[in-house]
Amino acid sequence: MKPVKVAVCGLGTVGGGVFNVLQRNASEIARRAGRPIVVEQVATRNLNPSCDTSSVYVCQDVLEVTENPEIDVVVELIGGYEAAFELVMRAIKSGKHVVTANKALIAVHGNEIFQAAREAGVVVAFEAAVAGGIPIIKSIREGLTANKINWVAGIINGTGNFILTNMQQAGRSFDDVLAEAQALGYAEADPTFDVEGIDAAHKLAILSAIAFGVPLSFDKVYTEGISRIDIEDIRHAEELGYNIKHLGITRRTENGLELRVHPTLIPKDRLLANVHGVKNAVMVHGDAVGPTLYYGAGAGAEPTASAVIADLVDVARAMGSDQESRVPYLAFAEQADDLPVLPMEDIETAYYLRLLAVDRPGVLARVATILSEQGISIEAIIQKDVSEGELVPIILLTHRTREAAMNEVIRQLESLSDIAGGVMRIRVESLNDQ
Amino acid sequence: MKPVKVAVCGLGTVGGGVFNVLQRNASEIARRAGRPIVVEQVATRNLNPSCDTSSVYVCQDVLEVTENPEIDVVVELIGGYEAAFELVMRAIKSGKHVVTANKALIAVHGNEIFQAAREAGVVVAFEAAVAGGIPIIKSIREGLTANKINWVAGIINGTGNFILTNMQQAGRSFDDVLAEAQALGYAEADPTFDVEGIDAAHKLAILSAIAFGVPLSFDKVYTEGISRIDIEDIRHAEELGYNIKHLGITRRTENGLELRVHPTLIPKDRLLANVHGVKNAVMVHGDAVGPTLYYGAGAGAEPTASAVIADLVDVARAMGSDQESRVPYLAFAEQADDLPVLPMEDIETAYYLRLLAVDRPGVLARVATILSEQGISIEAIIQKDVSEGELVPIILLTHRTREAAMNEVIRQLESLSDIAGGVMRIRVESLNDQ
Repeated sequence: MKPVKVAVCGLGTVGGGVFNVLQRNASEIARRAGRPIVVEQVATRNLNPSCDTSSVYVCQDVLEVTENPEIDVVVELIGGYEAAFELVMRAIKSGKHVVTANKALIAVHGNEIFQAAREAGVVVAFEAAVAGGIPIIKSIREGLTANKINWVAGIINGTGNFILTNMQQAGRSFDDVLAEAQALGYAEADPTFDVEGIDAAHKLAILSAIAFGVPLSFDKVYTEGISRIDIEDIRHAEELGYNIKHLGITRRTENGLELRVHPTLIPKDRLLANVHGVKNAVMVHGDAVGPTLYYGAGAGAEPTASAVIADLVDVARAMGSDQESRVPYLAFAEQADDLPVLPMEDIETAYYLRLLAVDRPGVLARVATILSEQGISIEAIIQKDVSEGELVPIILLTHRTREAAMNEVIRQLESLSDIAGGVMRIRVESLNDQ
Repeated sequence: MKPVKVAVCGLGTVGGGVFNVLQRNASEIARRAGRPIVVEQVATRNLNPSCDTSSVYVCQDVLEVTENPEIDVVVELIGGYEAAFELVMRAIKSGKHVVTANKALIAVHGNEIFQAAREAGVVVAFEAAVAGGIPIIKSIREGLTANKINWVAGIINGTGNFILTNMQQAGRSFDDVLAEAQALGYAEADPTFDVEGIDAAHKLAILSAIAFGVPLSFDKVYTEGISRIDIEDIRHAEELGYNIKHLGITRRTENGLELRVHPTLIPKDRLLANVHGVKNAVMVHGDAVGPTLYYGAGAGAEPTASAVIADLVDVARAMGSDQESRVPYLAFAEQADDLPVLPMEDIETAYYLRLLAVDRPGVLARVATILSEQGISIEAIIQKDVSEGELVPIILLTHRTREAAMNEVIRQLESLSDIAGGVMRIRVESLNDQ
């Protein structure tokens, strides 16, 4: 069969990986795809020293590839919003298929992009946008089609997991490990997107849309990062039998969808609690299949290239099928409008609270009373011994309750004269994988 | 679009699950597939009390469905070899697509079945044949197409994993836990297929073919079960930092493919070492993506139905594509013939050995000399204290070596007058997942 001709736009880390893996594994990929996949053009401002581009046409202007009649598929790896959005829309309007690793682009502009792609009859594929090399989009969108999905929970930001893992294993501070992650190239100079959960929120918005058949709703994701996590919290969690992980969670409830990114205590014996370093893992719970888990590299040149190229092979196949037989962009032919995203006050979970109390009789009773008045049961309490006159750390683990009730508890606790400073709150999920 | 009409053959555990999930999740499945998937006919000798078949045409003779012009897809869930083979071949020759959960059928007759299907232009899908509800066939065949696969290692028999988990956690004997597994319905009255590794060998043959692009070679799988594993071995392994799991392993080496099913010591901190109970998990290591892992229910009515129905949705889509654009049955359009299966003597791994020695001076030196003469280094030795006059258990952990060298070591050890009885040998794999 005729080769599929590809334009690689952006020859940075991921672009270089795609270029090199397509060359190195060309014959194996062609044997799988039933035809060669050939890089016909590269658009990049800077060449990548790891790539031998001597026999490929290289241009500087990415938009040039949309005018090249030879190109079947445009691979968008320039990142960011505006230039990427323009490139993708121009490619679609030129009748070219698109493969992208750009989660921000899909999470924010996906609804519009897919609408344009549907009208132009082209594929837009984005496996690499979530969890790097793990085929999680394919697994949910095609592998679990029999299921009503109950929930999805994942470690979907490798930088954050690297930081939490190193804090826990080496007893180091957040700032200290962040600096190391930056030196290793795992974190950007401005680490906001990773450590404040925005990157995870982009990915969670995509996972939620394909799991539940709802429109992309990035703007409705509750997002909390890991920068407030103290090594003390990690140690208390361990003592209680938990590890702290930064999770994206989306769950179907009777009233709507939970959609939230935040640090989470997970029981130590869960597989998710044992995913360490820069690795990613996503649990998907379906009503028929039960719990399933997908693990692997969430970033890096070749793992991300693995996902981009798998999309290229899928596009090559889709070129031989009629449009209505293709897998819908967001898993469902039409998005449901009867599953609103719940406000954070309406979600239900268990909680870890850490507070500093003045060492006075009756403090614990006052704390317990406030929880009890909101109907919240306490599962465990740790009260640490301190020298006389010091503030006493109290750690509480509660049973499940509504976030609104917990907000009220925290408001009341923080207004007690016995309690110094703010209350640290971390959510707790059981995420049973058996 | 026009509904896809399905005949479900066999209404036992899995058939009942497929029937019920197709009804319960009909609207969600139709929204994903772009068209309804409808059970038009059921062929079964015995009705399943969990299924309301009142509005479906039920026949007794499975071959009848191949004559029904209304049927698009035949779902083979009768199990076994001969009747299933006849049904599938008749369905293919009648131009019907086939979905099956039958690993024995695919592992043994797959090459012939796919040849017939290619000629008839129909799909034969078998996601449910390996690791139940986990979309592992799809992940390897479509999700990792960019990769040269290095190795695949999996816990692919839930019964065996249930037995090993319970032996370890409760300190019980193999026979005792097997009896419980039989009472719970996890093991058959004749447990040979599960506990002697034949079921795992069927699945491994399929995984190896799709990972490496080679023909199905079930008859070349080295197969060793778990019935010889003693609780003592599990305890010694724990002391050395390992859990014992029953694995299927296939690895690409310079000289050919390793293809083997046997109990294996895995370092305790690996994710695979922490897969417990009846659950399955498969690690796939690709040259671009690195290690990935897929976890979930490996058996049971609805998890298996999840995989069968995902195949039905894929078949529904494939009906709208030209044949050469479909995913090849065994992942590659053509099977390579330059990757022979290595004889077991040529595989390389590390070893755990347990022997019983007479309590005499110099025994350990004689044992160590035998290993050293074969060029094998010892990583760890445990020699247990015993009362005077008793036989002394010696446990050895070796570095990697060729199986042939280890066979020679064991032959020499067993001929020593100091050593009582046979030598217990369990292979050790590091299976790095970082």
